[in-house]
Order: sequence, then C-alpha cells, then structure tokens
Amino acid sequence: MISEKMRPFLANNSAIRMMFEEGKQMAALYGADKVYDFSLGNPNVPAPEKVNQAIKEILDEEDPLFVHGYMSNAGYPQVRAAIAENLNRRFGTSFTERNLIMTVGAGSGLNVAFKTVLDPGDEVITFAPYFLEYRAYVTNYDGVLVTVDPDESTFQINQEGFRAKMNEKTKAVIINNPNNPTGVVYSEETIRALAAILEEKQKEYGHAIYLISDEPYRELVFDGATVPFVTNYYANTMVVYSYSKSLSLPGERIGYLLIPDELEDSAVTIDAATIANRISGCVNAPSLIQLAVGRCVDCQADLAFYDRNRKTLYEGLTSLGFTCIRPQGAFYLWVKVPETGSVCDAEGGAGADQACGAGSEADSKGRRNADSETRADDAGNRLAAEAAFVAAAKKYHILAVPGSSFACTGYVRLAYCVSYETIVNSLPEFKKLAEEFSL
Amino acid sequence: MISEKMRPFLANNSAIRMMFEEGKQMAALYGADKVYDFSLGNPNVPAPEKVNQAIKEILDEEDPLFVHGYMSNAGYPQVRAAIAENLNRRFGTSFTERNLIMTVGAGSGLNVAFKTVLDPGDEVITFAPYFLEYRAYVTNYDGVLVTVDPDESTFQINQEGFRAKMNEKTKAVIINNPNNPTGVVYSEETIRALAAILEEKQKEYGHAIYLISDEPYRELVFDGATVPFVTNYYANTMVVYSYSKSLSLPGERIGYLLIPDELEDSAVTIDAATIANRISGCVNAPSLIQLAVGRCVDCQADLAFYDRNRKTLYEGLTSLGFTCIRPQGAFYLWVKVPETGSVCDAEGGAGADQACGAGSEADSKGRRNADSETRADDAGNRLAAEAAFVAAAKKYHILAVPGSSFACTGYVRLAYCVSYETIVNSLPEFKKLAEEFSL
Repeated sequence: MISEKMRPFLANNSAIRMMFEEGKQMAALYGADKVYDFSLGNPNVPAPEKVNQAIKEILDEEDPLFVHGYMSNAGYPQVRAAIAENLNRRFGTSFTERNLIMTVGAGSGLNVAFKTVLDPGDEVITFAPYFLEYRAYVTNYDGVLVTVDPDESTFQINQEGFRAKMNEKTKAVIINNPNNPTGVVYSEETIRALAAILEEKQKEYGHAIYLISDEPYRELVFDGATVPFVTNYYANTMVVYSYSKSLSLPGERIGYLLIPDELEDSAVTIDAATIANRISGCVNAPSLIQLAVGRCVDCQADLAFYDRNRKTLYEGLTSLGFTCIRPQGAFYLWVKVPETGSVCDAEGGAGADQACGAGSEADSKGRRNADSETRADDAGNRLAAEAAFVAAAKKYHILAVPGSSFACTGYVRLAYCVSYETIVNSLPEFKKLAEEFSL
Repeated sequence: MISEKMRPFLANNSAIRMMFEEGKQMAALYGADKVYDFSLGNPNVPAPEKVNQAIKEILDEEDPLFVHGYMSNAGYPQVRAAIAENLNRRFGTSFTERNLIMTVGAGSGLNVAFKTVLDPGDEVITFAPYFLEYRAYVTNYDGVLVTVDPDESTFQINQEGFRAKMNEKTKAVIINNPNNPTGVVYSEETIRALAAILEEKQKEYGHAIYLISDEPYRELVFDGATVPFVTNYYANTMVVYSYSKSLSLPGERIGYLLIPDELEDSAVTIDAATIANRISGCVNAPSLIQLAVGRCVDCQADLAFYDRNRKTLYEGLTSLGFTCIRPQGAFYLWVKVPETGSVCDAEGGAGADQACGAGSEADSKGRRNADSETRADDAGNRLAAEAAFVAAAKKYHILAVPGSSFACTGYVRLAYCVSYETIVNSLPEFKKLAEEFSL
C-alpha cells in the first residue's frame, strides 16, 4: 500500500546513504582507523567554537519563549537581516530580510523553490554529474529533470549541450557551484554564457526561466578561486544555501532560500515560497540554531584543514598514477576510473546509477562515447569498470562513491572532508589499488 | 509564474498566521499587556529548564561532529530507543528504535506519512473542526481531504457521519487527540467505535486504511482524562508526535512518526517513510535538539500552569454567559458565538474558511442546520455572526480565531497558552464583549 511514487525509491535507495551505513558497519568490524570512508559529505572539521558559544549565550541571554518559539514562517527577521547585510557587504548586492526565507537546510530550500514554481510536466535542466537528489526533488512536484552531458575536459558547463536541451517546457535550471561531485568552480565566463542563453530563451519562449543556484560550498574555495554571485548576472535567479558545510552543521538542517527583488513577480514569489515553507510541514527553520547562525554570519570554515586534505589527496593520488580533476572548491575529489576495466559487477553499478529511480540514465551513461559504434556497449563497459574499481577499493577499506551515483559513469567521488590521518593512512592503500590496476 | 497549485494559498494565506502577525502589530501599537492575543498555539510556558541544561551538557560532553553532523535519516538510534522505551513504559507497547522516525515537527511527520501512502485521488477523512493545514498536507500529494460533520453536543467523533463518508478511495483517516481546536479528548469508547468501522471497511474494500493520529497535545490533559494510545486499538495506525507543546519547543521543529510492527507491510512502510523524510529535503530532524529531546523524554510540561489558565478562562467566560465546550486537553477553549448575530462582515469569515484554498467548505458550513429550509442561508448567517463576533472582540484587543478557520463556523478558538496575566486582564474586556452581545 506504499504510494506508487515511492516504490522506485525503495528499490534503489540512495547509494551514498547506503555506503554511509556500510562505512559505519565496516568501522565497527575493522576499527574506525582502518576504514577510509570517503563516501559522505559529512564534514570532519568541527563547527567553529563560536557556534557552540553562541548557542550557550542565546540560552543564557534570551527568553526561552523567543528561543524555542514560533517566529514568522520565513524566519527571525533579525537573522535574515544579518545574513542580508553579510551578503551585501561581500557581493555588492542590496538584499533585505524580505529577500530571505530561512529553510530546513538546502534540501528543503530546493524543495520550497520547486514547490513554488513548478507545474506538472515542467522541465528542470541540470548538468551531469549532479547530486542525484535533484531528481527526487523535481519529481516531488511532478517536474521532469533533464540532464546535460558534461564537457569532460573541464567539467565547466557544456553550453551547447545546455542550449540543445531547452524547450518551451523549461521552467528552471539548477547549478551547483562549487560543484559536488567534481570540485570544480564555475567561472564568471561560464555564468555569463549560461545567463546569455537563459536571457535569449526567456525571450524566445516568452516566460521566465529560473536559475536555481545551489551553493552550500560557496565559502569552500581554494587557490584564490572566486564564485560568481549569480543574482549579479541574471535577474531570475534564486540562491539556495546551507550552513551544513561552511559551519559544519549538516545535521542541524539550517539554510536559506534567497529571492532577489529583480526576479519576475518577486513579491508574489517570496510570499508563495514562504507559504510553501509552511505547508511543506517544515513551518519554519529550527529556531535555536537559526538564532545561532544569525550570530555567526561572519564565521569562517577552517579552510586550511580542507586545503591540506585536498593537496595531500590530490597530489598523493596523481603521483600514484590516478587521473583526477584538480578541485578548486567544495571538498570532493573526482577521480577517473583507470581504463583497465576488468568486468566483474556491472549490475551493482547499474543499480546505483538509478538511485533516484525516476527514469533511465541510459542517455547519460552513453554520452561520452563519441566514436564507438554502439553507445550502449561502451556505457556498459564504463559501468562495469567503475563497479570493479569501487569493489576493488573496498577490499582496501576505501569507500568511494561511484560516478554513476551522480549520473556520470567512469569516475568515483572521494569526499575529503575526513580527518587528515584518514587521508595520510589511506595513501598506502590507494597505492595497492593503483598496483592492482597497473598504474 | 507561480505554480498553479500555490495560487489559492496566496489568495487565502493562513488566517491564524495572519492573526499572529496582526497580534504582533497590535502589541507594538497598544503595548503587549493591552492586547489579549489568543490566536496562536505558541506556548507561553517556557521549555523545562532541563531542556536548556541538556543542550549545554551535550555541547560540553559530546563531539561536535556527532552533535551537529548527519545521522541516519530516521534519526539518532539512541534517541529513538529512549522514546520507544518511554512509550512502552507508559502504554504497554513494545516498540523499538526501528518503529520511530524523527521528523521536523508534527507538520513534517504528517507530510512524511502522506507522502509514503497517498496516491493521487486517494481520500483522507478528517473530522470538523480540524486544523486546516491538514487540507494542504493532503493536497501536497494530490490526495483529497473529506470532512465529517461534528456532533456539536460533545465534539466526540460523529461515527455515523464517518461511516457515510467512507468509500473505496478512502486511504487514511486523521484524528487529532486531544483535539485542536475543541480541547476535547476522544474517549476509549470513541476510539473503539472508530476502529470497529475501520476494520469493517478494510474488509469490505480489501485494502488497508491508515489511521493517522496527530498527538502533539498527548500530555496536556486535565481532570484525570486519559488519551487512548491508538496502536493498542487498531493495527494500521501511525502516530505523529511533536515536542512543540509538551516541551514548549514549537520553533525547534522536532517530533516523530511512529509506525508499529503491527501495521500492514510495516518494514516496507518504515523504509519508505525514512526515504520520504530524506527526499522531502528535510533529510533528518535537526540534530542538537533531537539529542536534547532524547535526554528529556521523561520531562513533563507544566500542566498546573495550563490548568490554572484553563479553569480561569472557562469559568470566567461561562460566568459571563458565554457557552464553551469544557476542555479536557490541549490548551484551547472552544467558544460558541452568541446567537445575536448582527451581520456585518460575512466575507471576511468566508475568506478565512477557505484558508487552505483547496475546495469549497460549503457543505461543512451548512452542516449543522438540521431544521432550516435553506442550509446556505443559515450557513451565511452563522458566518456573518461569527465574523461580527471576531470583529467585536478585536475592538477590546481580544484576538480569537474564527471557527471557520477550522471548517466549523459559529465558534471561536481561544488559545489559552498565554500568560496568566493575559487571562486575568482579558476578563474585564470579555465582560464588555458579553455586554455588547447582551449576554
């Protein structure tokens, strides 16, 4: 008697989440220090001390009825004002509290955005590789997620692929910048090109196309990279943010949805999103942590920690012969599966690839095969090679998420938001893995 | 470009929430002590000191990565185990952590339940008067909310009315016990009769009908009343709970969904609900407050506070000539609109009545008119009288929610979870109101 819509999810529960559970089991079995679990974006940097301090101060200073009570569905005005002021200072914008709706993390923020604008059958475009939950979020509102093949040379946006997927049903586009799983930061040039196509197509179709920018990793950038603030480039932008990564608060479910005044029918859209936040059942973002975040808007994540991990893992793996995209943001390393490909468990990979269960990913699996006569065969080979690689890594207690879990077979994602010791101790195991694959 | 589904909500935003905003404005204008805001179920009893103490202890004792990090989507196992143990002790049940999914309050718990079991067109029955958000929650999943007229003599469940509304499309039934807005506690006899009809109809239709019991007020009972634990009476029950009221944490959004082993296909349903919690975007219930609640499962709300308010308001109003349902639970007083009925603002009431915007409430407005030749006229008169009464109360700075906001015109709801001073100071104003209505 489970809802028809829920059934595919039961068959293909999130591969990442399953690996998280598997990692916990392996840790219990072999000892946590003998398992190199790179599967989940669960930061290993503790929240800045100021967050816990702020929580205690709030409990000591403020009326508990205020701290734990209902507030406006959009969140405490003073928290939203503090965030707006912080954004304005950093990005030359002119937001007020009215532009911000506090949400139960970015996941909920994306759902609020989609609930606000999607009608059944509306198409939402995103760019492979992508966080597979996007498909679930879009189908929650009977939208259709359409994916664009990557440019594998840079993993910036494949603009012509994007243009080709647009049509009159296109209602929204999701980008994730800095990117999970590639660690790439979309450049200003990329955003400008994207915005130009969006403007052109809005005119052509005569309706708004929303650019929804999912930015939980905004502050996690290295090598002096900058993340363009998208509302400055395209009016019909919504920004979704979470403090999960920047303040290491993923379990707290605290973030926001930003809707700028420049967006078409902005006032109505803000009101509708506030109502969507309420009727989704969330009602409002959790109160105490919301107040705490309001006192910590200027806090910084411990970038040096991630940067050391990033360099050690990237340099370690490339010197072992692995091919990796050099990450400039987030805390993920995107590693190419070595092309030796001893086929052993294609089905396992195929299951993971359809983790969201909504439609086949056959087109994306086959997408990178320009020369082959049989795209499906090539996709199958890539999938088999990927599954073999993930399975081989597991023998050395290395947990990596297969690229097919991001609709981009032939890669694995390593979340390096682990302890530095995990990185260092994993390298001899990666060496064995490299040897197994004759690197 | 707002979603079609969102448009009716924009036109009819929650009357209760609007009154909450209006109350804040009036407090700013006249002074908080001169406004008697009975509009919102925002407890005026602070959270037990033990909650804040638990939060501080957790911050001091536990690893911040554990406190603020991801956990299983169903919640921390130890928190769920503590709640299961508490329920087992109190209700003779035998739940384990596996039966509990921690949710972002009861609102989210209800949404997770509906997302798990509803297919488009499925009917969900509830009993007027009811919390109007139920309609929004059901329509979120394209279900249809069907309402049963009340038995106005007791406001227990109108069992024959219930039976008459059942059909093959009936997938679920929502009850709220103790009841918002009436303050009535459904008796064991009521629950047994309800369960008997459900059993009979399950057999007749050959499919499960879920009883979803929304119980945020479970512990708020007076006069020695007991609230039957529904899983003990009917197997296909899900219980939705929130710590909003019992621990005065409404802003924190922390509660649970309980799915007993006795429920049909329990294991699959629990898995599906856990996934629904994830893909709704909530991912998991907020972590720190979840841990705090786990340490406070045996905490008690300050019942004496509410009981004093209850008695003072009930006795005060009845001695002034108002007709009230004597509340045995929750913190609401359900007051009959005096039948003088000077018509002045029927439209205002009508708007509020359709706050959820999904379908007309015409049948429920007219439902209590057994004798009248023209049900619509009578409904209109009741609505007009109600609106006039609410407007008159506002003149004395008394904010009451019209019964039409609960699909039961002819009453107002007073939320007495306010300070005792508010109750005492409001009585002279209620006296003026009574005089205006010649009581």
